[in-house]
Amino acid sequence: MSDTPVVRIDGERLLASLRALGQVGALDGGGVCRLAFSDADRLGREWTVARMRELGLRVQVDAIGNVVALYEGRESLPPVMIGSHIDTVRTGGLYDGNYGVLAGLEVVAALREAGLRTRRPLAVAFFSNEEGARFQPDMMGSLVYVGGLPLQQALATRGIDGSTVGDELDRIGWRGDAPVGAPQVDSYVELHIEQGPVLDRLGVQIGVVEGVQGISWSEYTVTGVSNHAGTTPMAMRHDAGLVAARATVFARELATRLGGAQLATVGALALTPNLVNVIPNRAVFTVDLRHTDAATLAQAEREFEAFVQAAAEAEGARCERRSLARFDPVHFDPRVVDRIEQEARALALSHRRMPSGAGHDAQMLARVCPAGMIFVPSVGGLSHNVREHTEPADLVQGAQLLLQVVRRLADRP
Amino acid sequence: MSDTPVVRIDGERLLASLRALGQVGALDGGGVCRLAFSDADRLGREWTVARMRELGLRVQVDAIGNVVALYEGRESLPPVMIGSHIDTVRTGGLYDGNYGVLAGLEVVAALREAGLRTRRPLAVAFFSNEEGARFQPDMMGSLVYVGGLPLQQALATRGIDGSTVGDELDRIGWRGDAPVGAPQVDSYVELHIEQGPVLDRLGVQIGVVEGVQGISWSEYTVTGVSNHAGTTPMAMRHDAGLVAARATVFARELATRLGGAQLATVGALALTPNLVNVIPNRAVFTVDLRHTDAATLAQAEREFEAFVQAAAEAEGARCERRSLARFDPVHFDPRVVDRIEQEARALALSHRRMPSGAGHDAQMLARVCPAGMIFVPSVGGLSHNVREHTEPADLVQGAQLLLQVVRRLADRP
Repeated sequence: MSDTPVVRIDGERLLASLRALGQVGALDGGGVCRLAFSDADRLGREWTVARMRELGLRVQVDAIGNVVALYEGRESLPPVMIGSHIDTVRTGGLYDGNYGVLAGLEVVAALREAGLRTRRPLAVAFFSNEEGARFQPDMMGSLVYVGGLPLQQALATRGIDGSTVGDELDRIGWRGDAPVGAPQVDSYVELHIEQGPVLDRLGVQIGVVEGVQGISWSEYTVTGVSNHAGTTPMAMRHDAGLVAARATVFARELATRLGGAQLATVGALALTPNLVNVIPNRAVFTVDLRHTDAATLAQAEREFEAFVQAAAEAEGARCERRSLARFDPVHFDPRVVDRIEQEARALALSHRRMPSGAGHDAQMLARVCPAGMIFVPSVGGLSHNVREHTEPADLVQGAQLLLQVVRRLADRP
Repeated sequence: MSDTPVVRIDGERLLASLRALGQVGALDGGGVCRLAFSDADRLGREWTVARMRELGLRVQVDAIGNVVALYEGRESLPPVMIGSHIDTVRTGGLYDGNYGVLAGLEVVAALREAGLRTRRPLAVAFFSNEEGARFQPDMMGSLVYVGGLPLQQALATRGIDGSTVGDELDRIGWRGDAPVGAPQVDSYVELHIEQGPVLDRLGVQIGVVEGVQGISWSEYTVTGVSNHAGTTPMAMRHDAGLVAARATVFARELATRLGGAQLATVGALALTPNLVNVIPNRAVFTVDLRHTDAATLAQAEREFEAFVQAAAEAEGARCERRSLARFDPVHFDPRVVDRIEQEARALALSHRRMPSGAGHDAQMLARVCPAGMIFVPSVGGLSHNVREHTEPADLVQGAQLLLQVVRRLADRP
């Protein structure tokens, strides 16, 4: 950035703002709970928008509660957007989502204090209900923003407590009047904690995110025959739990064989009747398959399903699959990815190209503009956990990199 | 039985009495619930003892609620006892336990109507809380009867609903004053449905039970590390669920390799946090190992534990084992077993020597006298199930065999 004055993030203020927002909906013993459209979410929104107004930003709220704050540019062009979310899971940490939004506000604050405006405007956004912990699907606000989910359908979504998004938005007073999908965005950058162990384990400061893995969630129901564990010869059994166990072992084998970016997890399993001396007649389990390559992901899905069917058949059991969720892999725009890598190098930050394992609003924005993401390390890979932690130095470095990247994007010819 | 007049069981009356007792505590849609020391158990006891008194039997109740009805013999000797239980599991059938008691009463009724008395007295007993569905351990009444569990300890046992055996016995009015363990028994025969599929599958009418399998129940707790399914590379995982799955698959391999009478079942399993996109950090599962041979059972226990420890270690997880129950195999007295086989042959009933996979009061009585059991087929092997069923002809044949056997035992010199 030899041609422009150096502008530095105020690290202490960034950390203070993370702590302050973390007090809204704070849990005893640490962590935070600000489920989407809850009273805690309302208070979090009020706190964040007050900060936006302090910075003199023009704030608009759309009909699904997405909030966009604009910092005018030197020219009237589509803005470069910095975005993420401020809702959390039930036992969330201080950084997931919040970090990207508050770092975005610090970027604006730093430029403002330096008396600088970029060629294109900057926008700092937080999207509604990224977590999907109360209302499904997750990434709801950004999905509506990019036209991937009709507004009326989103508003009618019923949550785990029976309420609807629309009613809850009205109740907390955050159904806005800005047009959904406005403003049109020039490009989008999201700064986020990794939520995985890779950067922490490798001691790398910055993850240059190339895309988001494709995700396939299925639920399998295996139906065998329940019988007495003490009187049923092994050869006469139809053990649904054994089929689930074989599938779990196969998931690991499959991921290891496909190698590299392939992930496979059996995270949930319920046996019926679940008694020590009764052969299970029913096993319901989930498999979470992820890969950055669409064809490999589809192969993993096919192989896994074929295996479970064959294992069920061999045991004299039946098996049914239900898709719970499916997203194809997302590839971020090379112009944004390369820019992040170049600026990380310029700041002498160690960095590594990597996929995102988790879903993020950036993958929705990637449908309508060049988008990319910056990761900073999560200590121990913990996230969605009250012990979620990122070292202060990493948080500040990530925000500084964000500043350099969006400034470059916004100032480009 | 060439030297004695033929005495025939009244099959219709036996079946009618099974149906009648099955009305006590009947469940809507079939089956019965008479948990030990419940009001339904009290009504079942009243019904059964009324039938005993109709037959002119002397009824005594001991301090744990075991009931013994005596039919005097020609000489004052220790009686030959026919026993079982009338308590049921929560979703029980009409035959488990009840059949052995009511068939015993039909044996006495048939002899009485024929004006016959055996040399030794006959005793028909039902033991308290055989099922252990409300108060553990199971076979409690017969265990106390043979001195294997101190009376006071049994009375102080707290059930799944918080009440104690002693309080519940008092509440239903069935804490008796007969000395525990009286009378001393000459020999013991128990007639029972198989509760397994072997006789039904093979089309064999009678199981000549040689003993009861040894039982080993363990609970394993595997502790790994919970992490995001989308961001944690396969090589960095410590998946407690995978260890449980490997153990489940190994249980089947182990039983198949040891062959024959070896049984191994993983019946219960709970994952934590049990979410589709989170690697389980905790898996708690049970294994039920059974064998008729003590040394083989001990080998299976050792091999299984070693496998789970090694699988946990390979996954970077920890593993703890807790014993839930352990019974060595029981071998019934050859004099009783051979007698049952001879009488089955004399009645031209197809028969097969076999172990019992389930626990029965007979294994407790075997500690103090020669004991044995007769099995009749269970359709589909179903038991502890409202659909438990045995064909009427099989029920009547079993009772006829019981009559022949106890008459021989009671009349022997």
